[in-house]
Amino acid sequence: MKKAGGEDALLERIERAFPGAGGPLLLGPGDDAAVLKVRPGYRLVATVDEMCEGAHFLDSFSKPELIAGKLLRINLSDLAAMGDVRPLALLTAAGLPRAASGSWARRFITALRAEARRWRVAVAGGNIARSDKKHFSMTVLGECRGFVTRYGARPGDLVYSLGPLGLARAGLELLMSGSARRGRAALIDAFWRPRPMLAEGALIGRRGLASAMLDNSDGLYRSLGIIARLSGCRVKARLPEAVCSPELRRWAALRKKDWRMYALAGGEDYGLVFTCRPSKEALVRRLLPGALRVGEAVKGRGVGVEDYGGEIPVFEHF
Amino acid sequence: MKKAGGEDALLERIERAFPGAGGPLLLGPGDDAAVLKVRPGYRLVATVDEMCEGAHFLDSFSKPELIAGKLLRINLSDLAAMGDVRPLALLTAAGLPRAASGSWARRFITALRAEARRWRVAVAGGNIARSDKKHFSMTVLGECRGFVTRYGARPGDLVYSLGPLGLARAGLELLMSGSARRGRAALIDAFWRPRPMLAEGALIGRRGLASAMLDNSDGLYRSLGIIARLSGCRVKARLPEAVCSPELRRWAALRKKDWRMYALAGGEDYGLVFTCRPSKEALVRRLLPGALRVGEAVKGRGVGVEDYGGEIPVFEHF
Repeated sequence: MKKAGGEDALLERIERAFPGAGGPLLLGPGDDAAVLKVRPGYRLVATVDEMCEGAHFLDSFSKPELIAGKLLRINLSDLAAMGDVRPLALLTAAGLPRAASGSWARRFITALRAEARRWRVAVAGGNIARSDKKHFSMTVLGECRGFVTRYGARPGDLVYSLGPLGLARAGLELLMSGSARRGRAALIDAFWRPRPMLAEGALIGRRGLASAMLDNSDGLYRSLGIIARLSGCRVKARLPEAVCSPELRRWAALRKKDWRMYALAGGEDYGLVFTCRPSKEALVRRLLPGALRVGEAVKGRGVGVEDYGGEIPVFEHF
Repeated sequence: MKKAGGEDALLERIERAFPGAGGPLLLGPGDDAAVLKVRPGYRLVATVDEMCEGAHFLDSFSKPELIAGKLLRINLSDLAAMGDVRPLALLTAAGLPRAASGSWARRFITALRAEARRWRVAVAGGNIARSDKKHFSMTVLGECRGFVTRYGARPGDLVYSLGPLGLARAGLELLMSGSARRGRAALIDAFWRPRPMLAEGALIGRRGLASAMLDNSDGLYRSLGIIARLSGCRVKARLPEAVCSPELRRWAALRKKDWRMYALAGGEDYGLVFTCRPSKEALVRRLLPGALRVGEAVKGRGVGVEDYGGEIPVFEHF
């Protein structure tokens, strides 16, 4: 299970309450997605994610098309983090205020159909309920051969980040501030249209590159903490300048903040964070030139960040 | 897709927007559950349902244990309506106010684990988000051999109802009214603890008894209307006294209402409504003695109710 908002105690309670495997489950709550063995040689992957007004977006800066797109993409990102996965089908549940039951709902449906087609996912079912505020949940099913867990790292492994860092948080701040958006489309897009790294995840899975992997949904610091906790090691992090995009650099300077704060504590980036054995380093560099090394696993517990003396706030959805 | 609250125009729009089959889908939105062909000879069934504070329950009369139980049961009821289905696993998404993140959440998790064990469903995953009001959605996966759709009825078929009618609505009124609950446990239970008719659905599926079937979630009148519309026929309904339980009779008398109104328009009963060919009548009576004949399919459109002159309000969740 995944818990938004940093309440790690509840998350850990949930992990203890539900066993990780058993019955049809090869992998249960606590990873990006569950893996079910439904037939010999056939593995079904299933994940669920949620977007709630007031927690993940405000009505003032959202549109049905943006929500439909992001809802599917963040679920696909969970599948990508499992490795060699082919998405199959989605089911979605929407809570809508009465005022949104007309054209808003129609636009949402039209957009969901288009996004599902784009990512080749069949719309299998859904439910609409009445609700004061908008909320949406989605389950996406896929099939996989192998899968990569969050708990396979060991001391000596190298830690990589693939995809944007901190941009979505900057985009959210921009949307919340009401500042001019011109010239800042990259930030808005990072927030609303994260790209699920299905191809990269599949490559990592097929080639056996990663010892542990997850999608980066609550900031790099928290992602590294999850790998460290579940793998029973410590992660020493070090952020090279290369992980900071020009757009983030400009935004951080404007806000008079260290860009590393965004990279470490900004949420909803939805790139991939993975560890690999040193023997795979050359292969990772060659096959995934966009992957940047951001640390290494060592003996111990927790996460340490070099070259950063600032505070690392826990990412909270508002 | 299923739509609570009688907004049939939106429901029909959704059905048109998403094709019923194609790709991995053997049956898509518009039925109780979707059916996916993931391997030759292997069919996966998937359904989603939702419970929202203010629409499906009020905080004043709910408990985490009751919500966890009902959430799973109403999804299992959807699977039962597909016929010979074996439930496999669930994924759930919860929106919780900050005040519910402690002991309320822990009780919900404990209860969900117990309910999942009771119904032999593996908890595969979940998500918790921050929300002003409580809301819960759940997807349940199962495997099936054959499946029964909502659209297979034809003129001449007999219509049966299996399970309670009107009791859950009476239970909801009781809970809303704050009246004394003593001696009325059956009404409360009908609302909070519907029994998914998995065994009956499986029997109907295995023996090929039904030409169309669905679970009765928005009142019998609406269920019959769905069969009529999707099957392209008319349903002539006739409610025998036997469908009225003593508890419902007492409650209706107290409220000075016709018990038929509850049976026809009360929602959330979650029994099974099905049609069968006349040649199966004797078998249905023998194998399912609790099934009561409530009408027949004829040529035409819509639903007509004999022996009832009252209004049939559309069931709205509050």
